[in-house]
Amino acid sequence: MQDDNIIFVGNKPVMNYVLAVVTQFTNGAQEVFVKARGKAISRAVDTTEIALGRFLQNVEKRSITTSTEQVDTENGKTNVSCIEIVLVLRSEIGQVSL
Amino acid sequence: MQDDNIIFVGNKPVMNYVLAVVTQFTNGAQEVFVKARGKAISRAVDTTEIALGRFLQNVEKRSITTSTEQVDTENGKTNVSCIEIVLVLRSEIGQVSL
Repeated sequence: MQDDNIIFVGNKPVMNYVLAVVTQFTNGAQEVFVKARGKAISRAVDTTEIALGRFLQNVEKRSITTSTEQVDTENGKTNVSCIEIVLVLRSEIGQVSL
Repeated sequence: MQDDNIIFVGNKPVMNYVLAVVTQFTNGAQEVFVKARGKAISRAVDTTEIALGRFLQNVEKRSITTSTEQVDTENGKTNVSCIEIVLVLRSEIGQVSL
């Protein structure tokens, strides 16, 4: 399933998301998208830093983008910041450059 | 002073940092670095999203990088995630591409 390699980081302990990222690559994913909104953005950065620094030596950050989304709340629409961090297997990058 | 165009985002209200970024560009800065560590990372993203979306139409994100720093605490060293968002005047990019 295509959406399997998207990890939405929320309010659970950070190691839950680290495990999810590591599992994706262990199961053969070539790239994983780590996404978060609002206060969870810090945890998304923690997730990738821990996953890459401690567990996935052959994975690197390909891109980090931020954006603004409108969400509906009880008091009307409000803006929330988002982050998307794309992680890729280093070997895949190597193939492109060869 | 070189360091003037580095905004360290901490625990103050986000609009304080938005104002600091806007002031830098208003005073002639060509690029501004927005930095934060730990939980303040979310606020650094909010700062740039609000500053660019609402106040600085001619400024764009040039790069977003994350890293891990070791900090000393009472209980020994610990790792903390960091973010650095580089904002540049769009006209400066235009000059390079001409």
